[in-house]
Amino acid sequence: MSENPTYTIKVNKAETSKIGSVNFDDLPFGSIFTDHMLYSDYKDGAWGDPVIEPYAPMPMDPSSRVFHYGQAIFEGMKAYRDENDEIWLFRPDQNFDRFNKSATRLAMPEVPEEIFMEGLKHLINIDKEWVKKGKGNSLYLRPFMIATGHGVIAAPSAQYRFMIILSPARSYYQGEVKVLIAEHYSRAANGGIGAAKAAGNYSAQFYPTRLANEKGFQQVIWTDDATHTKLEEAGTMNVFFKINDTLYTAPAGERILDGVTRKSILELAERENIKVEVRSVLVEELINAAKDGSLKEIFGAGTAAVINPIVGFSYQDTYYELPKQDNPISLQIKDKLTNIQHKLAEDTFGWTVKI
Amino acid sequence: MSENPTYTIKVNKAETSKIGSVNFDDLPFGSIFTDHMLYSDYKDGAWGDPVIEPYAPMPMDPSSRVFHYGQAIFEGMKAYRDENDEIWLFRPDQNFDRFNKSATRLAMPEVPEEIFMEGLKHLINIDKEWVKKGKGNSLYLRPFMIATGHGVIAAPSAQYRFMIILSPARSYYQGEVKVLIAEHYSRAANGGIGAAKAAGNYSAQFYPTRLANEKGFQQVIWTDDATHTKLEEAGTMNVFFKINDTLYTAPAGERILDGVTRKSILELAERENIKVEVRSVLVEELINAAKDGSLKEIFGAGTAAVINPIVGFSYQDTYYELPKQDNPISLQIKDKLTNIQHKLAEDTFGWTVKI
Repeated sequence: MSENPTYTIKVNKAETSKIGSVNFDDLPFGSIFTDHMLYSDYKDGAWGDPVIEPYAPMPMDPSSRVFHYGQAIFEGMKAYRDENDEIWLFRPDQNFDRFNKSATRLAMPEVPEEIFMEGLKHLINIDKEWVKKGKGNSLYLRPFMIATGHGVIAAPSAQYRFMIILSPARSYYQGEVKVLIAEHYSRAANGGIGAAKAAGNYSAQFYPTRLANEKGFQQVIWTDDATHTKLEEAGTMNVFFKINDTLYTAPAGERILDGVTRKSILELAERENIKVEVRSVLVEELINAAKDGSLKEIFGAGTAAVINPIVGFSYQDTYYELPKQDNPISLQIKDKLTNIQHKLAEDTFGWTVKI
Repeated sequence: MSENPTYTIKVNKAETSKIGSVNFDDLPFGSIFTDHMLYSDYKDGAWGDPVIEPYAPMPMDPSSRVFHYGQAIFEGMKAYRDENDEIWLFRPDQNFDRFNKSATRLAMPEVPEEIFMEGLKHLINIDKEWVKKGKGNSLYLRPFMIATGHGVIAAPSAQYRFMIILSPARSYYQGEVKVLIAEHYSRAANGGIGAAKAAGNYSAQFYPTRLANEKGFQQVIWTDDATHTKLEEAGTMNVFFKINDTLYTAPAGERILDGVTRKSILELAERENIKVEVRSVLVEELINAAKDGSLKEIFGAGTAAVINPIVGFSYQDTYYELPKQDNPISLQIKDKLTNIQHKLAEDTFGWTVKI
C-alpha cells in the first residue's frame, strides 16, 4: 500500500470461490477468470475509488463509445509464485508506463499509478490461491480501459472504466510455428497507433492471420506498410532473428510495440555477451541468410508465450525451413528469463517486485 | 417484409414512450435514442432471430472480445419523413454491402440481408413517431456489430451481436470549419483497415484531432502515411476540392472509405455536368492552387453532416483562407442531395427506398 493513499479500495468479496471447479493442469489460455475483478470509473475529470467485486457481467449502454469508436487499451502481465510461496510481478512499472502511453495516444485519461499498482496487488492478494507454484504456472493479469460514455458521436468519451481481470495460465507448447511474411496486409501505419496496445490493432490482424492459417501458417511476420521490405513484428509479438552469431530485432517505435519481453531479452543478451543489433532486418537479407545458411533462428517474444520459436517462413510462395539447433539461443534465453520470473535465478536487474 | 422470411423478428414493446420528454428543436447529435433497439446474436455459426426490445443497457462479460481486441464495425444511415408522411431510406443497399465488407476485413461473420434490412424497417416502423417531417430533420440509424465471445485470446471471437439503435437528428451548423493538413499522424495504413467502418479507425484519430482542436482547427485532412503528400480524407468524412471548375476527390480504396455521400455526389455531379476528377490531389497542388486563386472550395461529405464546407486550411504553420463564393457548389450539391432524400425533388437515380 502507498504511504498516503489517495484512493480507498472498496472490497465486496465473493461468497464462494470457483477455484475448486478449475483443472489447473488443463487451462486454455485466457478463458478462465478468478473470483474477483477490479474497476474504477472516470467521470467529471476524475477517477473514482477502485472497487473489487465478484467477477461478473456488467451493464453496458448500446451507445457506449467503446462499441462504436474503439477507445480501448490493455496490458498483458503475469504474476508468479516462488518456492517460498511469495508472489512476484515482473517489471510492472514497464506495463504501467506503456498503459498510460497507450491511453494518451487514444485520447483517454491516464490512470493514476496508485489505482493501477495498488489495485493490481490488492486484487492478486484476494485471489492469491489462483497463483500456482511451479515453473510454467502463472497468473495472467489483464489491466484494460474502455470508453463507457454514451452517444454515437465520433469524439473522445468523457467517461471511462479501468478494469483488471485475472486468468490462471500454464506455459503452452503451440506446436511447430511456421510464419508467412506479409506482402500485402499491414499491422500499422506511420503516424498510426502501432506503438499502443490498442484494441483496434488486434482485430485488424485477424483477417490476414486467418488467410495465413488457411495456408498452413500459424502467424504473420508484419512488414512496413509502404514497401513491405522491412521485417517488423510476428503476429502479436516482437520478433528476433539470429543470423550467424548476432541477434537482430527492429527498433521499437511508432509502428512497433515496445515489448517488455523484447526489452528484457535485449538487457539479458547484453549481460550474457550475446551480440545484438537493434535495427530493421530486410526481407531480402532474411532470404539471403536463409539461402546461405547464416540464418540460424527466428523467434517471437511476448508476455503470453515468453519466447515462441519459429521453424520456418514463407515468402512469395517459397518456404524456407530453418536449420535445427542443438541448443538454440531462443530456449537458452527463455530459460534464463523464466528462471528470473520464478525466482529460480538471481534477479540482478531488479525486475521482480514482491506483492 | 421478405416473401419467404428465414428469421422471425420477436418484438417486446416498451410500456411507455420517452418521446414526450424530447425537445426535437434542440437535439445534440447521437445522444438521444428512441424507445427500442434491435439485436441478433451469432453463435455456433448461425444468426439467431432478431429481437426488438426497449432500449436498455445489456450485460457484458468483462472479457468480451470487443473490449480487448476491437472487433467492432458500424454503419451510419438516415431515415426521412416526406410531406405525405411516408418514411424513406437513402441507398440502404450501399450501407448493407459496406457493412459486410467491413465484417469480412475484421474477421467477423456477414449479417444476412434479411436481418439487416427487415430488422431496420421493422424497428423504424415501431419507432416511426421519432421520424419528424421537415428538411433538416432525420432519424439517424446506427447498425453495428460487436464481438461478444469471452476470453482474452487475441483471435477472432466465436460469438457476435448485431444491433441497430436509432437517434433523432437535426441538421446542424457547426460554425466555420478550419482544417489542419496532417504532416505526421495518419488515419490508415496500406494493407490496413482504412476501407472498413471499423471502430478502431475512429479512436486512432481522436488524439491528432484533439491536437488540431487545440490549435484552433476543427478537423484534420489526412494524408497518405508514407509520404504525407496526398490528400485523402477530412476527419471522418470524404473530402472534395474545387479547383477552377473541376471537383476533385481521391479514389476510394484500401486507405479511403467508400462513402455513400461521396459516391452520390459523384453521380449527381455527372448528371449536372459538373466536371469531376477522381484522383489524389497532392498537398503541393493544393497550396499552389490556394496561392494562385484557382482553389475555390473544399468540403467534407458524409452521412451525418451531408456536406461540410471548409473555410480554410493550415499546412506547415501557414494558414490559407478560401475565397468566399456567392453560390458555392458545395451548397448547391447539398441542396440537390437533401431534396432527393426528403422527396422534395424527383429521385431519378432510384436511391430512395420506402419503408
